This record gives sequence, C-alpha cells and structure tokens, in this order.
Amino acid sequence: MSSSPSATLVVPGFEGDFSPGEAFSLEAGGVLASPTLHYAMYGEPNAAGDNVIFVAHALSGSARVADWWPRLFSEGGLLQAGGHCVIGINIPGSCYGSTGPASVDPLSGRPYGPNFPLVTIGDIVRMQALLLKKLNIHRLKVVMGASIGGMQALELAVRFPELVERVVSIGAAPLDAMGLGLNHLQRRMIQLDPAWRGGHYAPDQQPRKRLALARALAVCTYKSADLFEHRFARKPDRSGDDPWSSLHERGLGLTGGRFDVAGYLDYQGEQFVARFDANAYLALTRTMDTFDPARGYPSAEAAFSRIEAEVMLVGISSDWLFPAREVAALAAGMVKAGVRCQHRELVSSHGHDAFLAEPDELARLIRPFLL
Amino acid sequence: MSSSPSATLVVPGFEGDFSPGEAFSLEAGGVLASPTLHYAMYGEPNAAGDNVIFVAHALSGSARVADWWPRLFSEGGLLQAGGHCVIGINIPGSCYGSTGPASVDPLSGRPYGPNFPLVTIGDIVRMQALLLKKLNIHRLKVVMGASIGGMQALELAVRFPELVERVVSIGAAPLDAMGLGLNHLQRRMIQLDPAWRGGHYAPDQQPRKRLALARALAVCTYKSADLFEHRFARKPDRSGDDPWSSLHERGLGLTGGRFDVAGYLDYQGEQFVARFDANAYLALTRTMDTFDPARGYPSAEAAFSRIEAEVMLVGISSDWLFPAREVAALAAGMVKAGVRCQHRELVSSHGHDAFLAEPDELARLIRPFLL
Repeated sequence: MSSSPSATLVVPGFEGDFSPGEAFSLEAGGVLASPTLHYAMYGEPNAAGDNVIFVAHALSGSARVADWWPRLFSEGGLLQAGGHCVIGINIPGSCYGSTGPASVDPLSGRPYGPNFPLVTIGDIVRMQALLLKKLNIHRLKVVMGASIGGMQALELAVRFPELVERVVSIGAAPLDAMGLGLNHLQRRMIQLDPAWRGGHYAPDQQPRKRLALARALAVCTYKSADLFEHRFARKPDRSGDDPWSSLHERGLGLTGGRFDVAGYLDYQGEQFVARFDANAYLALTRTMDTFDPARGYPSAEAAFSRIEAEVMLVGISSDWLFPAREVAALAAGMVKAGVRCQHRELVSSHGHDAFLAEPDELARLIRPFLL
Repeated sequence: MSSSPSATLVVPGFEGDFSPGEAFSLEAGGVLASPTLHYAMYGEPNAAGDNVIFVAHALSGSARVADWWPRLFSEGGLLQAGGHCVIGINIPGSCYGSTGPASVDPLSGRPYGPNFPLVTIGDIVRMQALLLKKLNIHRLKVVMGASIGGMQALELAVRFPELVERVVSIGAAPLDAMGLGLNHLQRRMIQLDPAWRGGHYAPDQQPRKRLALARALAVCTYKSADLFEHRFARKPDRSGDDPWSSLHERGLGLTGGRFDVAGYLDYQGEQFVARFDANAYLALTRTMDTFDPARGYPSAEAAFSRIEAEVMLVGISSDWLFPAREVAALAAGMVKAGVRCQHRELVSSHGHDAFLAEPDELARLIRPFLL
C-alpha cells in the first residue's frame, strides 16, 4: 500500500501503573476499590506542555500504541518526528495491565470475574483525567483514536473541555441497533460455553472455543463484504477442505468442508484467544455498547456544546459496524452545537478495520489537521 | 401496508408423500436409500396441464405454501383466483415431512443424525422432477421462490429446461464470502453445543440454546440495519432490562441488561427452536452454501444458455445476505447467455426477509409477469 521505507517499531520510553489511590465510583453504580491504569509514554512532555498526544486504543489494543499502530510512528508516518510525547493508556476492563475482570478485587481477595462492574467510556476518561493530572499534563495537543479509542477521544473532549486542544475520532459513534445486536450475540456465545463457568474460569482454562467464535463474528463486523469477496469469494479453504464433500474427514455430513472464508474466520478466532481474556471481551463490548456522549446531558447538543477542542471525525466508507453515515450525522450534530468540527471519509474496502489496514491513507487525511 | 381485505388462509386440498422407490445418488457422493418428498397441492392440474405453479420454500418453510406466504393466496393476493394448481414440496434435509437428518436411515435402522449427506439444490430439483413426473405434471406454468426457494427455481430451469415456462427467483444468488462466513459461524455455534452430541442428540433433547443463537444471527442477516434502527434504535429491552445496569438481576456485571434489539433476537431464537431441528439447520445451510447453478457446466453462460423459461429475478434493495447487486449481476449473466430475463428490485428496508414482510409490494412487481 505504501512506498515509504519499512516501518520502524518504537518502544515506549516508560511504562507505568497509576492508581487514584481510593475507590472509584462508576456511573452505572459499581465501584472499583483500587483500580490501576497501565500506561506507556513515548518521548516526554516538553517544558511548555504543548507536545502531548494521547492515543486511545480500541477493543483489543493496549497502552503500547506503537505495537498496534506502528505506521503512525514509522519513518514517513504521521508522528515520526521528534518532539512529540505520545501516551497510551490501557482501558479498565481490558487484559493488558489495567484493572480488569481477571484482576483481584481487593474487597474479596479474589478475581472480579463475572462481578466486574460495567465501566463506561465516561468512567474511563474520568480515570484517564486523574492520570494526566498526576503526570502534570494539563493540556493535550491531540487526543486521537479509532473505534472505542475514538469514543474515548470524544468523551474526553465533552467531559474535560479544558484538557483537549484537538480531537481525531475515527470510525466511532454510538452503536446502532445492528451493532448492539451482534455484540449481544457475541457475549451470549461466550456465556453459553460451559468452560465460562458463569465467569469463574481459571485463567488458563478460559472458554477458548466460544471466545474464538465470538471473535470470528466480530471480525465479520470489522471487515466488509467487498473485502471478503475480493479475498475469498467462494474458494474452498486453502488448507484443503472441500465444501462440496458429503462426508469430510471428520465424518460429519452436516458440517462439511469449509470455504476459504470459514478457514480464515476460524484462524482469526484462534489467534485472538491466545492474547485475550473472555471476561475482558464481555466487559469491553459492554463498554462499547453503552457509549453515548449525550447521556447525562439534557441533549446531544448540550453535551457537544461543551467541547472547546477542534474536532475531526473520520468515517470509513465500508464500515458497517460504525457506518459512515452515522459518523457524518454525529459531525452534523456537532456543527449544529457550535463545535469546530471537520468531517472526512476514509474511502476503503477494509471496513471498520481500515484504521489499522490503511494507515497511510488515514495519515494523509488527518496530517493537515494535526501538524 | 395494504388496503385489501384481510387475508384468508387456504389449506391444501391434498398432502402426500412420494418416494422414487430406489436409492437416490447425490452429487456430493452420498446416497439417500429411500428418500421421501412431502408435498402439498392447492387445487388440481387442469386437463391441458397448463395451470400448475410450483412454489419452492426457503430454509425454514414447508410444503404448505399458504402457511408461510399467505398473502399470495388471500383475497386480492397474487394467486387468489381459482383455476391455479399450486404445489409445494418440502426439501430433503428439512424437518417438515421430507427425508432429513431426523429421519431413519433404512440402511442403519437409526436416524441419519450427523451422517445425513450433503444434499445440493441440484439434488433437490432432480428429486422434485421425479415427483412432478409421477404426478403427470409435464410442464410448470411458473416455478417461483425466494432465498433457497429462488435457488430451486433457477436450478430447475437450468436442469430441466423443458419443464419450466416461467421462473420467478427472489433474493437468490450464490452466497458471497460474507454470507458463507456467517453461515459457517452459525453451524459452529450448534456444533460446539455439548447438547449437540456430535449430531446424535435425542429428538426431544436438541441443542436448543445454540440453535436459538444461530437463528438469532441468521435473523440479523435476514433483516437490515435500517430496519433494526427504526424498530429498536438504542432503546432498552421492552421487558425491563437496563443496559446501563452494572449488576443486573442475574448478578452478572459482564453481561448486563439487554437493549431492545437483543431481547428481540433472543425471542426470535427461542421461537425458532420450537419449530425446527438443529441437524436440519446444519443440513440446509450447507445446501444454501453450495448453491452454484454453474457448477457441473463449463461456465455460468453454458449453464444459463440451457434455460428455455422466461425468467424474472428480483433483488431486494436492503438485502445484505443476497445483495441486490449480486442478483443484478446474475440477471446480466443470464441476458448475456441469451435468457429472456427481466430484473426487478423490491425497494424495502426489510432486508432479505422482505419477500415475507412485503408481500403486497412483491405481488405488484411480479403480477404482470405471471398473469
């Protein structure tokens, strides 16, 4: 896709853990007794404090921004140049260092498991603001992210207007009914796994098969029909399954050989299980579902009118989880509320995942806004 | 939707079972030792034999056409008038009277279960042709159907050109990669259910929860995002769940209260389990997956050029399981092959299910072609 030099991965200059030091009350009514935020910093804040970029991660990401968005940091990439301080913060509910369902609840001395409370995007940004304060960061030059990361960027600008100079939110909006339905089915898959054990599984005995299945469905929502058709069409599975076989090697006439797309989805599911936790998946899809920046305000307009930052919203043309038209509607609502909001569309067949799959095109769109 | 008088359901004048009387060899290599086709007839063939309409059913339908497509038979409906003979034939693999996975395999004396072989649309129409011959029906005025029913209509016209005068195929084309992937995940859900028992469950102990879940995912593919948004948006479940609750009534912080769309999907799944069999679901989704009228011919053009019938293909504007553009491409391929093929689009937000949800609009489109 790119003619620029090969990517150079960057490691954080610092990784650390932060705790507000007291119980954190959540919007939905739960409490995290002593939550930890794991964060990573690339570079350092300058004396003027005007070089900090907070990159918020998506569902399966981590604080190590350069691990999952390497092209932003490579030579020729968006944020290659020195002088920036980039910070990533793992979101609570995840399994990459911050407090999540697998963490021990200080109140019970046991892992939260199924008792991990609902953490909203609003809760997350309130914790992030505490961390930024602790780090003496009083102003973010940019907060950017895609998907759940884009939700955080928007919510931070609504809740803490004085903290945010610019927002880039990519492929993010309150989920529509189809997205809510598909997330619900993914959670149900996991919950129906006997190995889930009502959420009380041992760390090394998680409900692998159903988590893989849930991820495979999610992958369908992250990609597009056009991309799948281009990649797989109706080809048989590349490992040799024959979809037209009556009794395949496992002797099951009802299941049969796979098409190529099925093999791909199975593979994606298996890969995910190796690096993610089922309860964290349940927690973060609920976080995604409940995102609504207008919630708690009289109206969306009232919420948006709080924003002082300049905002760029990027929709992805082939995204059907967060359809481009819904991102456009969000942008229109912001403009109506008086926000300095620009709207762009990333034209790509990659679906929601275009923010990862098309980093050069994404950088081309947002560079003029950032630099 | 309609101002016509209320629908009058029609019961079949005759229901019966047909067996070719010998083993039936299937394209994928399996054999059905003594298959049965269950069929229903409304009216009788006339002396000239020019009044027979074969209505092919979709995945969860039955031979009783008027049960699932009542508006075609009601006053003011498409086929209200006397003089027609309408025939419906339950497809093998199903659980409505024809041989399926729950039937006893004469060779083993036990239910086929997971050993039920792959039955293709080509196999199905070859069996149907034997039944029609037995009934002394040598010519079909019309064969029509939607989804898997539309596949049968097309395949019959390719395989038995002399048998078919007119074809109406609605929302049918070879599945694309996204559709194949989503069907695969539905099968995997069922197979992963311990209650599936490798396909050897007792008739009254089928894998209810995972079949319901598979159906719920299928319902997502049968509807459209617009329809869901119009009906459910981000409303909480109407039975009282609160999606923003941290610890809902079942005490599971990770699962939480449902949105309205989730309650709807759960309900649809539960309703389906009461009337369908898990192994039949596996069998028929494989039948759907493997539909390809060009298979076995040198090219799609070679296959289509066999068709003597006049054909009408109807795409549904909001169908994302069988996208309208793919139906249009199929129509273009037919025209190229010299088929007298018309193409129409049913404009509806109901998605694939529009063939059931918008019968009046559908009738308006196809009436001029049929009568």
